[in-house]
Amino acid sequence: MNKVTVAVIGAGRIGQLHIGNILKSSLYHLKAVADVYIDHLKGSQLEEDGVLITADTADIFQDPEIDAVFICSSTDTHAGYIIEAAQVKKHIFCEKPVSFNVEETRSALKEVKKNNVNLQIGFNRRFDKHFSKVQDAMMEGNIGTPQIIKITSRDPQAPVIEYVKRSGGMFMDMTIHDFDMARYLSNSEVIDVTVKADNLIDPEIGKCEDTDTAVILLTFENGAIGVIDNSRQAVYGYDQRIEVFGNKGLVSADNEEITNVRVANEAGTSIDPLKNFFLDRYHEAYEQEIECFAESILQNKPLVCSGEDGQKAELLAKAAKMSHLEQRTVKLTELEEQTTI
Amino acid sequence: MNKVTVAVIGAGRIGQLHIGNILKSSLYHLKAVADVYIDHLKGSQLEEDGVLITADTADIFQDPEIDAVFICSSTDTHAGYIIEAAQVKKHIFCEKPVSFNVEETRSALKEVKKNNVNLQIGFNRRFDKHFSKVQDAMMEGNIGTPQIIKITSRDPQAPVIEYVKRSGGMFMDMTIHDFDMARYLSNSEVIDVTVKADNLIDPEIGKCEDTDTAVILLTFENGAIGVIDNSRQAVYGYDQRIEVFGNKGLVSADNEEITNVRVANEAGTSIDPLKNFFLDRYHEAYEQEIECFAESILQNKPLVCSGEDGQKAELLAKAAKMSHLEQRTVKLTELEEQTTI
Amino acid sequence: MNKVTVAVIGAGRIGQLHIGNILKSSLYHLKAVADVYIDHLKGSQLEEDGVLITADTADIFQDPEIDAVFICSSTDTHAGYIIEAAQVKKHIFCEKPVSFNVEETRSALKEVKKNNVNLQIGFNRRFDKHFSKVQDAMMEGNIGTPQIIKITSRDPQAPVIEYVKRSGGMFMDMTIHDFDMARYLSNSEVIDVTVKADNLIDPEIGKCEDTDTAVILLTFENGAIGVIDNSRQAVYGYDQRIEVFGNKGLVSADNEEITNVRVANEAGTSIDPLKNFFLDRYHEAYEQEIECFAESILQNKPLVCSGEDGQKAELLAKAAKMSHLEQRTVKLTELEEQTTI
Amino acid sequence: MNKVTVAVIGAGRIGQLHIGNILKSSLYHLKAVADVYIDHLKGSQLEEDGVLITADTADIFQDPEIDAVFICSSTDTHAGYIIEAAQVKKHIFCEKPVSFNVEETRSALKEVKKNNVNLQIGFNRRFDKHFSKVQDAMMEGNIGTPQIIKITSRDPQAPVIEYVKRSGGMFMDMTIHDFDMARYLSNSEVIDVTVKADNLIDPEIGKCEDTDTAVILLTFENGAIGVIDNSRQAVYGYDQRIEVFGNKGLVSADNEEITNVRVANEAGTSIDPLKNFFLDRYHEAYEQEIECFAESILQNKPLVCSGEDGQKAELLAKAAKMSHLEQRTVKLTELEEQTTI
Repeated sequence: MNKVTVAVIGAGRIGQLHIGNILKSSLYHLKAVADVYIDHLKGSQLEEDGVLITADTADIFQDPEIDAVFICSSTDTHAGYIIEAAQVKKHIFCEKPVSFNVEETRSALKEVKKNNVNLQIGFNRRFDKHFSKVQDAMMEGNIGTPQIIKITSRDPQAPVIEYVKRSGGMFMDMTIHDFDMARYLSNSEVIDVTVKADNLIDPEIGKCEDTDTAVILLTFENGAIGVIDNSRQAVYGYDQRIEVFGNKGLVSADNEEITNVRVANEAGTSIDPLKNFFLDRYHEAYEQEIECFAESILQNKPLVCSGEDGQKAELLAKAAKMSHLEQRTVKLTELEEQTTI
Repeated sequence: MNKVTVAVIGAGRIGQLHIGNILKSSLYHLKAVADVYIDHLKGSQLEEDGVLITADTADIFQDPEIDAVFICSSTDTHAGYIIEAAQVKKHIFCEKPVSFNVEETRSALKEVKKNNVNLQIGFNRRFDKHFSKVQDAMMEGNIGTPQIIKITSRDPQAPVIEYVKRSGGMFMDMTIHDFDMARYLSNSEVIDVTVKADNLIDPEIGKCEDTDTAVILLTFENGAIGVIDNSRQAVYGYDQRIEVFGNKGLVSADNEEITNVRVANEAGTSIDPLKNFFLDRYHEAYEQEIECFAESILQNKPLVCSGEDGQKAELLAKAAKMSHLEQRTVKLTELEEQTTI
Repeated sequence: MNKVTVAVIGAGRIGQLHIGNILKSSLYHLKAVADVYIDHLKGSQLEEDGVLITADTADIFQDPEIDAVFICSSTDTHAGYIIEAAQVKKHIFCEKPVSFNVEETRSALKEVKKNNVNLQIGFNRRFDKHFSKVQDAMMEGNIGTPQIIKITSRDPQAPVIEYVKRSGGMFMDMTIHDFDMARYLSNSEVIDVTVKADNLIDPEIGKCEDTDTAVILLTFENGAIGVIDNSRQAVYGYDQRIEVFGNKGLVSADNEEITNVRVANEAGTSIDPLKNFFLDRYHEAYEQEIECFAESILQNKPLVCSGEDGQKAELLAKAAKMSHLEQRTVKLTELEEQTTI
Repeated sequence: MNKVTVAVIGAGRIGQLHIGNILKSSLYHLKAVADVYIDHLKGSQLEEDGVLITADTADIFQDPEIDAVFICSSTDTHAGYIIEAAQVKKHIFCEKPVSFNVEETRSALKEVKKNNVNLQIGFNRRFDKHFSKVQDAMMEGNIGTPQIIKITSRDPQAPVIEYVKRSGGMFMDMTIHDFDMARYLSNSEVIDVTVKADNLIDPEIGKCEDTDTAVILLTFENGAIGVIDNSRQAVYGYDQRIEVFGNKGLVSADNEEITNVRVANEAGTSIDPLKNFFLDRYHEAYEQEIECFAESILQNKPLVCSGEDGQKAELLAKAAKMSHLEQRTVKLTELEEQTTI
């Protein structure tokens, strides 16, 4: 096998992003796309080029030529599709989160393990060249033992309320990326989570019992302290910065401006705005993550972001929500015990 | 009066810094310096230039020509000298903190108020050109209402253990500056304090029941969330950064490198190290703060940093210590009630 | 026509780059590739995918389905292929320079004009997002009238001597990009050229009667003064910066580092190296330039970089060489007169 | 002698700057100030503090207690005062240029040599922490042999016409600093000068037969090529940058902004303006240069900027003017021969 034959389930925004990247990659052959709504895809260039467009996922799961599926449908369907795919021995790339329910995620992962297929979770930021270089520097010992890990993660604008309602809440929808990044950068597990959060941007978000502004403290097993700050609305743009402070130094990644151009005049000096949002900022990371997934299948390379990584980020999101609601530090063991019952 | 006639009590490191700046300023006349040890000052250039060198502070307090005193002696003497100076109607510049004891600070401030003298606390960072510009931008509404306030404050190396023992602990000695900065930048009062702290750098510090690494969450009355991160040892230098994120934008102040020089060669591109420590980094701020103190006396300008500001920072330091020891969020009202009994 | 059917002549480094970008673009259909050596292409993925691999350019020029050709062969063949392509009414994308000979270039352009086909010259830097934004800012009047235009253009390492020998000399091979950029940024024509150049890097380059280090002054019709500095070897990487200074301000584009990561430790603070060389630095610009070429054909958009632009840059390279050899300022009219005889 | 007793001749803007720095320095005792106009100084704080205010320089030259003089009067008086001071064995700090006339400068230097006194020229930029660090890096071999030296030097606004008229022209008044910097950074002598200059800013300057915009090429003995670009009016502020490119790397010094503060909002990201003009930008350099002068007297340290350095910069200014007027490269030997007649 020198190409992975794939199908994509879910042709919304993120599904279309992956379809585009799959088509550009030399490691993939796209055989089918499934969605509940397929009218807009009928007669498209995709179909012309011989890709099967179907509303029935059975066309995918029962096709023995398909090696792997990309699950890009709505979150409530993820776990079910993972289980179905695993049972027919297809490798799985699944968008985050696996589910909103810890039990469901556990069941899905169990099936993946049993069937010995690869499951990669779409934590694309691990593949960002800036962030992965920070992690490299940390792992190579350039800054010694991590002591303070800081993640700034602010969206340019709050999502529409319809999205908020089915998002699982800010922690599960947005901070989950930062939880994953915190684990990735610290190379350690989180012991407890403490949240100060508020609804400062859009009162409608508050009405959904969700928050839009938060600072989150994490304690790690290796002694490091983590701090994440989130906002659903940074009017100056998509603010994505990280730093890892260790006993031997500091490594940090700053934002990316659109260009390096400066204009200086009587009014002052201005630099370019930040790349607009995740599709721009993580453009290359999205390309990179699917290359790695293909290599895990074709060359047996280890997964950079496994199902277990997905599960742990979900637990952290859950702990954060609990900390916010109960206004106290929540230990991860509380959740782990709770969920093994 | 076109010059303020002053005396300095305490001629240690910080006292000598103020003496140097007083001599360079056109707003001051230095008349006397008192210290418990004066041998090193006898026969010095200061004495030659006609400054009284004395071991007896009565020489200062009883001299009607002296308008103001700079209290730069050890912390345990601050409150007593403040009271003594206030009673003889001298204006007071006092190094932080006023005391390690909330009651003592309250008594000193009461006496200051009763005698209607000016008391400025040495929170020099309010006078740093970078930080005061951040506050200006915030006050001018450039970033709207503050929502997240971040302060990074890391010393280049841990103090010697002798210093640690009499420092009052990291929160009272070091973080107190950041607590003051947080109040200054938010233009709001803190409601509660949550601390995650550890002893990661020097085990000797732990033996003194002190910490050397901390991340501190603050909730403000105006809804903003604050986060301070501290380390007693940043091997790359004195790391002093702030940012205020508001609903209309972000204002931030980055570190100052010694020069703007870059060297790029086959080994990579390197920039200059940070200014070494507070004497370098806040060199101009130290000059500026005493100019403002003089102007408060000569021109009746309002104090930028009053005794009340000092008191509030001390309360925050105390709350931080309590939060750390009791592993919980501490409300400021707990302390205020406690201390009014 | 919603795709441009193209053939590529010359499958060396730059030809392969264009082939890759053509395949990724949705605006092209690649029908054929010609090269004098085709052994390495036989049986390749290209051929498998149905692209004709041929050693005979007649297969291209005589194919009525082919709308446009990319000329990526050696410089001595450019003018001939342009003429041949124009005569069979194919649009032309040609790598720079058109030729080393002013007369030859003129003949090729005349044929292009006569046959009314599009000719785009491969001055890819016009499509660099940083540089094109500088030009936008200038054209929008953000900096007023240009007065001083500065271009720094230094290669990371000197080419091999075999390359130097057939390069046409540094001015024709390397500076030609900067001459084009100077015209692009000034929006004006050059009146005269003054060169100080030397052979400071590799004595072998000197033996080829070529230079490796130069500073070039340009006088523009609109009064602006230009200055280009070149080196064949910047050990710290590919240094590509521009600035335009006008009566109302300055606009500048700085280098691009590989990532935004900084590592600060006791040894100092280091930032990432520059993007390695033109294939990295202008990666996106190469993609962009062929999109524009396709749009000039499909949508009749104006060419960003025409044959005349190529001709003018060649004249400037020739003037620079003359200035260097004769150690004097050379007026462009000298060359224009000379070449119209 | 542990302090240098000095007098200042000329109490205009630059004289007053030096007076202020002399008073703040611990290495000087200011005994007298002479000026043709002294009314504004009578009754001033200076006089109150015991400094002699005089209109008669004889009071200075005949006072045996005065070790050194600062010559800050108008340029036409410099050479005469240097000669007078040297003859009475006083060390001399003289503002640039020594004179507008090569012969006059030579005579003054001859007298200085004969009387074996120290003469320092006020090329303050050698003492700028950024620029001196660039020179250090170069001298320490961090970038190997210099090959291209670039100096950007642009004033924030053009001087008033009255000033232009008696300035000696832009090259002698403004570029002279850059000529000195070029020699300092290259550690080599200039062989020839080529100028492209124009009158683009203020037509009144052109009426004075002066220029306001120039790019200047220098060839150095060690093979390096230098390029200076000047403008009398950079609307965004005082633009002072240098870079030295060598066979082993690049060292550069960028501008200094007033603060490190950034404001990012919907309108974009803006950084602070540059330090306003030379009094701000070179504030510390002015302090530093007189410390060095004192040390050359008190501790016999070598001068950082000698009379010969002044003379060479004047020759370069003269060569630049000639190059501009005659539109050709001017060799320094032309001037040296000419002036030895």
